[in-house]
Amino acid sequence: MKDDTPTSAMVVIGDEILSGRTRDANMHHLAGVLTEAGAPLKEVRVVADDREAIVAAINELRARNTYVFTSGGIGPTHDDITAECVAEAFGVGIDVRADAREILLAHYGDPDKLTPSRLRMARIPEGASLIANPVSGAPGFKIENVHVMAGVPLIFNAMVESVRPTLEGGPPMLSHAFRIPMAEGDIAGPLAELAAAHPDISFGSYPFYQGGYGATIVARSQDRDELAQAAEALRAMCKALGAANVTELPPL
Amino acid sequence: MKDDTPTSAMVVIGDEILSGRTRDANMHHLAGVLTEAGAPLKEVRVVADDREAIVAAINELRARNTYVFTSGGIGPTHDDITAECVAEAFGVGIDVRADAREILLAHYGDPDKLTPSRLRMARIPEGASLIANPVSGAPGFKIENVHVMAGVPLIFNAMVESVRPTLEGGPPMLSHAFRIPMAEGDIAGPLAELAAAHPDISFGSYPFYQGGYGATIVARSQDRDELAQAAEALRAMCKALGAANVTELPPL
Repeated sequence: MKDDTPTSAMVVIGDEILSGRTRDANMHHLAGVLTEAGAPLKEVRVVADDREAIVAAINELRARNTYVFTSGGIGPTHDDITAECVAEAFGVGIDVRADAREILLAHYGDPDKLTPSRLRMARIPEGASLIANPVSGAPGFKIENVHVMAGVPLIFNAMVESVRPTLEGGPPMLSHAFRIPMAEGDIAGPLAELAAAHPDISFGSYPFYQGGYGATIVARSQDRDELAQAAEALRAMCKALGAANVTELPPL
Repeated sequence: MKDDTPTSAMVVIGDEILSGRTRDANMHHLAGVLTEAGAPLKEVRVVADDREAIVAAINELRARNTYVFTSGGIGPTHDDITAECVAEAFGVGIDVRADAREILLAHYGDPDKLTPSRLRMARIPEGASLIANPVSGAPGFKIENVHVMAGVPLIFNAMVESVRPTLEGGPPMLSHAFRIPMAEGDIAGPLAELAAAHPDISFGSYPFYQGGYGATIVARSQDRDELAQAAEALRAMCKALGAANVTELPPL
């Protein structure tokens, strides 16, 4: 990957993921979107509903990535502390903001429903812009390069769609995959030679076990022509290995 | 949670997770096992197949947790670099070790199959002990408090079972969950009061959307009696809110 390619990081906030009660779904979704957008995910941290942990993760990751995305902890309950942690990370104040309050009012329709708990969701750090939430009203927000979004997958995904057009990515990373029903140990030698012969292509090998051993070999590049040459070399390698029933997933 | 409760951290190693090609399954599995074992997961990092990132994650996490578990990057191919990164993190050497080589030989049955690529899987950092892999032979290893395991879920899970009896956990964290078909915003006020009245219990609220809004309220404690009192208070709260069709998931 070229050094000026934008990079992204994610902070997943939630005790329920770490306890094993809930299976995170947002990371996988965001990963695919960011690969497509040309701002690939370089690191993810899953942290507890803990002030110090959230602030540290946001500050470390925003310093070294083009974009940061958080998931979780912006609801109305006492354990939702992400918004104030983000304000603390940036050293700015946080309060209920008129535009966010208007959005909640429009969503709930009745001022009596804007309880103090719900109004927590209109607290926005100073200097942030809002991220639309077409599902349940309460907005996310963006401050500098950090996008703060909900944890419920349906709402998270909707917020990702709100943010997606604003992302400025580099050329997308293309990948060409070969699913080879042979043990990785029998592929590794020729693959290492092939990787050495194509130093500009990144080759990954991802073993699987489904009744028998196999490996998915993935070549990655931002250059479509170089990738096609690598795929041709992988085809020759499979043939030399006598691999039958190889499945290819070429780039779109 | 009491301050002397053991804690765990996980490092998931793999470009394929970050690119969105593969959905991680190991974190969720390990999280449940560690909660049961009384050494709950406090943080997870997903990092690329990158030497510097892997070494930094291992060193930061092993310094502040009782146990660290890694997943991925110990196969036979050139992009499997976890074992040497762990050796570097501990500042020790790494080489093919006789006992690990014997295990591979027993698994493959034929010395000719012990190619240089496969022998990479017998490289063990100095001072480590082996973790049994009943699925595919090639062992994981443990060095000080760091457990290095495979990324393929079937093998990862088998290694977790090899390690599980060695973990010394604190009293397990018990949880009692209430699935309430009401919007979080209508629950948040009474829940915050209830949390203030039971300062030794951790209360979490996890919203869901399935045709309508709802929230799973989870009370957590290591003390079964205190947890039962909190559950009783939650039942009274649901009644006062007029919540119908509440589902309980009491601790086992």
